[in-house]
Amino acid sequence: MRMALSLAARGLGNVWPNPAVGCVIEQEGRVLGRGWTQPGGRPHAERMALDQAGDAARGATAHVTLEPCAHHGKTPPCADALKAAGVARVNIAIGDPDPRVAGRGIAGLRAAGIAVATGIMAEEAHRQQRGFLTRVLLGRPMVTLKLASSLDGRIATAGGESQWITGPEARRRVHALRLSHDAVLVGGGTARDDDPLLTVRGLGEVAQPVRVVASALLDLPPEGALAASARQVPLWLCHGPRADKARIKAFTDRGAVCVAVPETGGRLELAGLMRALGARGLTRVFCEGGGQFAGSLLRAGLVDELHGFGAGIAIGAEGRPALGELGLERLSDAPRFRLRRLEQVGGDVHATWERPDGLRSK
Amino acid sequence: MRMALSLAARGLGNVWPNPAVGCVIEQEGRVLGRGWTQPGGRPHAERMALDQAGDAARGATAHVTLEPCAHHGKTPPCADALKAAGVARVNIAIGDPDPRVAGRGIAGLRAAGIAVATGIMAEEAHRQQRGFLTRVLLGRPMVTLKLASSLDGRIATAGGESQWITGPEARRRVHALRLSHDAVLVGGGTARDDDPLLTVRGLGEVAQPVRVVASALLDLPPEGALAASARQVPLWLCHGPRADKARIKAFTDRGAVCVAVPETGGRLELAGLMRALGARGLTRVFCEGGGQFAGSLLRAGLVDELHGFGAGIAIGAEGRPALGELGLERLSDAPRFRLRRLEQVGGDVHATWERPDGLRSK
Repeated sequence: MRMALSLAARGLGNVWPNPAVGCVIEQEGRVLGRGWTQPGGRPHAERMALDQAGDAARGATAHVTLEPCAHHGKTPPCADALKAAGVARVNIAIGDPDPRVAGRGIAGLRAAGIAVATGIMAEEAHRQQRGFLTRVLLGRPMVTLKLASSLDGRIATAGGESQWITGPEARRRVHALRLSHDAVLVGGGTARDDDPLLTVRGLGEVAQPVRVVASALLDLPPEGALAASARQVPLWLCHGPRADKARIKAFTDRGAVCVAVPETGGRLELAGLMRALGARGLTRVFCEGGGQFAGSLLRAGLVDELHGFGAGIAIGAEGRPALGELGLERLSDAPRFRLRRLEQVGGDVHATWERPDGLRSK
Repeated sequence: MRMALSLAARGLGNVWPNPAVGCVIEQEGRVLGRGWTQPGGRPHAERMALDQAGDAARGATAHVTLEPCAHHGKTPPCADALKAAGVARVNIAIGDPDPRVAGRGIAGLRAAGIAVATGIMAEEAHRQQRGFLTRVLLGRPMVTLKLASSLDGRIATAGGESQWITGPEARRRVHALRLSHDAVLVGGGTARDDDPLLTVRGLGEVAQPVRVVASALLDLPPEGALAASARQVPLWLCHGPRADKARIKAFTDRGAVCVAVPETGGRLELAGLMRALGARGLTRVFCEGGGQFAGSLLRAGLVDELHGFGAGIAIGAEGRPALGELGLERLSDAPRFRLRRLEQVGGDVHATWERPDGLRSK
């Protein structure tokens, strides 16, 4: 199952709205086939692994990271494929809560006389499927927030100077994180001030994540780097009801997709924004700021995972904060995260924090 | 030498103004004697290890973390003791720059026909002796700064609520850090606002570090926890020339030691403060804030090591910053540190940073 999970990870960021699944067909310790959800979501992991194994799959064991699908979608059900191949045993990490599956995959296998075991490395699989599960269960993508700052939590001097605080290894890791997500998201302020491209760079020829900008009034430069590249790399602009129609048209004409989102109190309603992204199929969204937007996401309880990059530099209290205001009344209201992983990356610290309450959240 | 370094570490914080040295007497891999500088600075490590080894030291090898002393102080020179014991070989990590030693220990040993090797695990020894070396070479103690904050660099909500941000394991580690230093230092604001005790607690019966408060006007409560305990645990109050004489007397009467320090621009001159602490014998000082005072130390280039504790909580930009203003004009002026160690402590991050330029600094 460890191998299957490692194969599955290859699909993170490029199989949405499908889950990134891994499958290993094995008999007496000999690997007969390895599969993972292919870019775009098809073929499925089981199909790929079975094709590799061929006739040898008869009597073998399949290790799958997610319950095999039981429904006819764009591909025939994987549960049927496993039955047809004659596997004797299927080990499954976690069940698929998709209402079209939801236990039916397992039941179908058992009805065909196949021995099915579940819950194998379930915690690891659950973590890996967090994006898919969040979308199925909560109707929104999983949200990962990146904060890169000085050791005192600053991203720039008072004068705005910020190049470079973290080192090249940490920046490279940020690009790898972008790649493992379906989309990269920033607030309108960052898109305006930094004119970023938000693509994955330095990691070879890759399928680029969707770039999403949240801007209530759509007051972004139509001649910026994002709009200029909208025909090469998807660009979604989430705007509120007050956004100017001519602007919407201008961006649409440049190749961007404009997504209308409700407002609340003069700002985009972030839960609504996330539902809109979930409805369009995104399962994993990587937010890179700015600080005000990140603060709003945290305040709305919408951050599932947080990557903190810390550099060995002190900037001082007059520097610009990595995180905007949260409007906390009490310390007990502060969002809390659990440390999952701690690593040195170049000369910087990389801490991975996760929301401790799993999917029992907004 | 590794064992000698580990023995030497036991002396950190309780042997000032002496260096914390470790010594192992060994023959063909058999350990005959182990010594380390004893509390208060005497006996020295070599004397202790030689006493353990007894006659077996003849022909053996001594591993010492610092060049043995060559001068008659309160104890006879250790170089002479090694000669008298008849050791055949002395391995030394680093030389002692104290002008009373400065190579004379090594020369004396060699003149007596003892084989001397130097530079063994020199980097580790240099790091361990940083406090002693800083005092000998720069006339001030080494300064270690602690910053404990939320993941966005805050120590309290806007309303001042701060209990607890880091967990019990991290707080315990802070007490262990206090213990490995000669003194704990805070600014007057922290002493006034928090009324701290600044003792080492929860680690058994230990020799308490000196408590030092930097307060230009000595405007501290004479009935506070620090003054009330001044007869049990040393309390040094560093004040400027404008401090009220009656206040100085009131604190002195309570058992505190008042140390006059020059001012510059209406504030204590921090380099002068550190020289005063060095002149009184301190080699390792642990600064625990507040943020403004920590910022002043950083601005003055007086921080040699920095311990960052980061908790998995977000407080937001309106919270109180862990570090005050640094008055940076350019990012290239920002103090930079090198990551030495990264660890998870309970649910928190503990990053140890050190000044990259070693002793080539102010």
